[in-house]
Amino acid sequence: MGRATDRRSVLRIDLDAAADGRARVRRQDTLAVEEPLEIRVGPAGPGRRKPLAVTMRTPGDDLDLAIGFLLTEGLIRSAEDVHTAQLCAGAETPNTYNVVDVVLAPGVPEPTTDPARNFYTTSSCGVCGKASIDAVRTRSRFAVRDDTLAVTTATLAALPDRLRAAQRAFDRTGGLHAAGLFTAGGELLVLREDVGRHNAVDKVIGWAVREHRLPLAGHVLLVSGRASFELTQKAWMAGVPLLAAVSAPSSLATDLAEEAGMTLVGFLRGQTMNVYAGAHRIVSEEAVRTA
Amino acid sequence: MGRATDRRSVLRIDLDAAADGRARVRRQDTLAVEEPLEIRVGPAGPGRRKPLAVTMRTPGDDLDLAIGFLLTEGLIRSAEDVHTAQLCAGAETPNTYNVVDVVLAPGVPEPTTDPARNFYTTSSCGVCGKASIDAVRTRSRFAVRDDTLAVTTATLAALPDRLRAAQRAFDRTGGLHAAGLFTAGGELLVLREDVGRHNAVDKVIGWAVREHRLPLAGHVLLVSGRASFELTQKAWMAGVPLLAAVSAPSSLATDLAEEAGMTLVGFLRGQTMNVYAGAHRIVSEEAVRTA
Repeated sequence: MGRATDRRSVLRIDLDAAADGRARVRRQDTLAVEEPLEIRVGPAGPGRRKPLAVTMRTPGDDLDLAIGFLLTEGLIRSAEDVHTAQLCAGAETPNTYNVVDVVLAPGVPEPTTDPARNFYTTSSCGVCGKASIDAVRTRSRFAVRDDTLAVTTATLAALPDRLRAAQRAFDRTGGLHAAGLFTAGGELLVLREDVGRHNAVDKVIGWAVREHRLPLAGHVLLVSGRASFELTQKAWMAGVPLLAAVSAPSSLATDLAEEAGMTLVGFLRGQTMNVYAGAHRIVSEEAVRTA
Repeated sequence: MGRATDRRSVLRIDLDAAADGRARVRRQDTLAVEEPLEIRVGPAGPGRRKPLAVTMRTPGDDLDLAIGFLLTEGLIRSAEDVHTAQLCAGAETPNTYNVVDVVLAPGVPEPTTDPARNFYTTSSCGVCGKASIDAVRTRSRFAVRDDTLAVTTATLAALPDRLRAAQRAFDRTGGLHAAGLFTAGGELLVLREDVGRHNAVDKVIGWAVREHRLPLAGHVLLVSGRASFELTQKAWMAGVPLLAAVSAPSSLATDLAEEAGMTLVGFLRGQTMNVYAGAHRIVSEEAVRTA
C-alpha cells in the first residue's frame, strides 16, 4: 500500500542520438501508479455499505481521500460524522486494498443515490453548473468571505518551490499532481500527490478533517496544476480562504471564488502571479511591516 | 455557443517590477471557459430523456462530446445508433445550451443507471480497475492488436508542434487540453480543445463517429497532457492503435495498452519519446525506405 510509483520497461527513442547508435535504448522507467478506489458508505449495523463512487487514484492516504471526498461532497461535516473508515472490509471481495468502507455515525443521513440527481458524476468529474454553485453555497458551513487572512506576495511566491521540494515522486514520474496546505506564514502543513488532482486535494482535506482543523481559516491551499470549478468548490467546502494554482484557472473557478469571497491566485510562478478574486488578502511586505 | 475563452479582470503582481512602480497592474486576462454539460439519453417517443452524466467542459462541439462519450462508454456502436442529438430540447429548462438531448435509434438499449454499477463514475473520472479492464475488452468491437499501422519516429516527433500550431486557444489561456487525430503520415484530421482532457478526446471521437470513420485503424491520437487509464480505454473503444501523450502515462494506462495490443508513447517532446507498449509500430526512416 501507499506505493505511488512503479517500474515499467520502456523503449527510449532519441532521434538526435542516431549517429552514435544509441537511438533506441530499452530501460526501466518510473511511472505514477493509477488504481481504482471504490468508496462505500453506509450506516452502522449489519447492513451492507453501498458503493458511492469510484475514482482512479494513486494508492496511499486512501482513508484521507475517502473522508475528504465525503466532506467536500457535503455528506459529512466533521470527523465525528464518521464511525469507522477502513480499507476493504467487504467479505465478497479479495483484499485488493482498493475499497474504503465508511460507516457513518448514528444520525448521519445516508447519501442519496437517485440517478436523476447525477450524484455519481460529482465524484471527480464535475458537478452541474449554476445548480451546483447554489448547492455548494447552501451546503458550505464556512463563511470564507469573512476570513481575515493576509499573505504577503513574497510568501506566496515562495510556495511553489516549497511544494516541489517536498514532493517525493514528481521528479521521478512527471505524472503526479500535488496539493499542499500552508499557513499564512508559508509553512507547509501537509502535502499530498495523486494522478488525479481532485484526489490530491481530497487527501489534503481528509487529513485536515481527521486532525480536527476545519474550517481551514487562515490557510492557503496550493495546487500544482490548474484551478477548476471543482477544486475551488472543494476549497470552499473546507473553509479555505485562498486557493493558489501554478497554472490557469477556468472561468467558472473565477466566478465561484468571487461568489464565495475567496481569493483565487493563478499562474503563481517565479516572481509573478495573477489574482482573479479577493485581492485584498494579498498584501505587500511594507503593509505587513507597518501594520 | 462554442466560445472557448472569456475575459476576466485580473490583478497582475510582479515582484521584480516593484522598483518601477508597476508591481501591481490591473488588466484583462483571457480564461478558458468551463461550463457544465448534461447529457440526457432516452428512446424515441414522448418519454423524457434521463440525465446520464454531467461533465464540466468548454462549450463547443457539444454534440460530438455527447456522441463520443456514449461511444467510449459502450452505449452506442456507431452514428446509426443515434436517432437525434440536439442541444437543450428539455421544455422544463431554459435554453442554456448546457444540455444535450440524445434520442437513441429504435432497438438500441437504454443505459443502465443502477447505482450499484457505479455507472456515473465512468463519465470522466475513471472506471473501476480490473473489472473495467475486463469490461472494455469484451465491449470494444475493434481488434486493435491486429492493426498494421507503422509510423516513423520522425513523423511522431513532428506531431506535438503540429498540434500546438493548430490550437487556437491554448496560447491565450494556458488552460485548455488538446487532442488531435492524425493519419499515419502525420496529417492532422481534427483537433479539439477542452478544460477536461477526457472531453477533448471524446470530442475527437464523436467527430469520427459522425464522419463514419470508426474504427480508427491506422490513425494516431495525440493528447497534450498525460495518458491515463481512461484516455487509453477511450482510444481503444474507437479502435485507435497508437496513443501518444506529451506527458507521462500512468501504470494502468501502460498495462491496458499492453493488454489491448495498442502502442502507447509518452513524453513525446522534441526529438525524444518513450514507448511503453507496442513498439513494433514505430519504425525508423530507413525501415520505411527499404520496405
